Amino acid sequence: MNPFADRLRAIQAARNSLLCVGLDTDVKKLPASVRDAADPVHEFNRRIVEATADVVAAYKINLAFYEAMGDRGWPALRRTIALVPEGILVIGDAKRGDIGNTAEMYAASLRDDLKFGASTVNPYMGSDAVEPFLRDPSHGVFLLALTSNPGARDFQYLASKGVPLYEQVVRKAKRWNTRGNVGLVVGATRPAQLKRIRSIAPHLPILIPGVGAQGGDLRAAVRYGCTAQGDLALINASRAVLYASGGADFAEAAHAAARTLRDDINSFRRRAG
Amino acid sequence: MNPFADRLRAIQAARNSLLCVGLDTDVKKLPASVRDAADPVHEFNRRIVEATADVVAAYKINLAFYEAMGDRGWPALRRTIALVPEGILVIGDAKRGDIGNTAEMYAASLRDDLKFGASTVNPYMGSDAVEPFLRDPSHGVFLLALTSNPGARDFQYLASKGVPLYEQVVRKAKRWNTRGNVGLVVGATRPAQLKRIRSIAPHLPILIPGVGAQGGDLRAAVRYGCTAQGDLALINASRAVLYASGGADFAEAAHAAARTLRDDINSFRRRAG
Repeated sequence: MNPFADRLRAIQAARNSLLCVGLDTDVKKLPASVRDAADPVHEFNRRIVEATADVVAAYKINLAFYEAMGDRGWPALRRTIALVPEGILVIGDAKRGDIGNTAEMYAASLRDDLKFGASTVNPYMGSDAVEPFLRDPSHGVFLLALTSNPGARDFQYLASKGVPLYEQVVRKAKRWNTRGNVGLVVGATRPAQLKRIRSIAPHLPILIPGVGAQGGDLRAAVRYGCTAQGDLALINASRAVLYASGGADFAEAAHAAARTLRDDINSFRRRAG
Repeated sequence: MNPFADRLRAIQAARNSLLCVGLDTDVKKLPASVRDAADPVHEFNRRIVEATADVVAAYKINLAFYEAMGDRGWPALRRTIALVPEGILVIGDAKRGDIGNTAEMYAASLRDDLKFGASTVNPYMGSDAVEPFLRDPSHGVFLLALTSNPGARDFQYLASKGVPLYEQVVRKAKRWNTRGNVGLVVGATRPAQLKRIRSIAPHLPILIPGVGAQGGDLRAAVRYGCTAQGDLALINASRAVLYASGGADFAEAAHAAARTLRDDINSFRRRAG
């Protein structure tokens, strides 16, 4: 029984997509055509979700972009989550990580209140920071293993007895996966390591950011990120879809960009599978 | 020029206190006497701050407890920050950590919008996750090094070339401290490591949680956490102060608990200094 992994697999099969679109909506980058709306961010998100829902398996919502809106942020976040149709995974990309009693609060907020289907969690503080998120087997927990950004080099590659930190996280993730809901975050900018991680954790979902604006190789991300069954990789694109056009046609452009990504992913996926 | 460290030193001298009280206000633990207020959490915080302001150097506000309040959380957080009198440091304990463009958003929110004087930051994602927080030299950035919780054992002690991960963080923290605003978080439950960390980083502010409910040794925290000048350690207590009494006298009890802590800290501090 792997409630979350099984659910993700079913979603990916039903929708024929491994694509995750990141709703990292930057109020400073909104097209002129939505700026006059009563709630420009919501109007933008609404049109993006409407335009892309048919080609995605998941949306990833980055909490920083909503917190940056101040007091309006939390209601806006909640309304954005509500835009997503049934049958699509919604990931709360919050990267929280704190001691047990605090992690309880973060988990209660992201999972029970906001109703995210999965959360990203920072593993630095260890098991008691992660455990409250794991308690509901239907809620996915994507642990940061090897991230897509330049700063990943500072600590994540440090090797202890020959095993780099990111791989220590992967090993713990497997041990902590007693309820079938643990996943990993591995950047598309690290193809060799992604391949290695998939070989160590053949069955865990892997959320893979870093294609598009961050320059990761899509083919390698799909080929190395998928399981032997050709699934459980979630390829995230944010800026490449949201800002595919800065004009009034932004939603159509987002749909075209997302559809092309979905199709490219599927073409690499078939060859891989 | 160490703008943040100098400011913290001045606050600690002016207030004759190294105490930080954590406003981790749990709506489920409020005394009956405030439950009928229009805004019970705010009323509780107001009375706690009023009762303890004369004996603290800082308040640490844990964002999880406000996010768990849902849409009311962010305004409640903002109003709690506004309760703190001038001349006392207010730390946003959010432990954020994300790639550069996202870290910009988190920093903008915590520092520029909410006006926290310092933030806690998770170092796992490395330099670009930390840098946006460092940009304003007056804003303190407390990097998680060795945390007070049991899960700290999972990754933070892993040694690469004989140097444990938490010490790798301390070394990077020193390198990143080009603007004089970097600090560390080291749990009071780790006295031997705290001593070692202070020897490696003789001049950085250290935020020390884990006394009280978590069982850390106060004497060791003060003795090992202070600089040679007997300052720049910030000893945090949350539950031991907030819930010193569950009755109508909670504010008086909080004051007594905080004053005793402040005095005990100062007695250890003098002997140390």
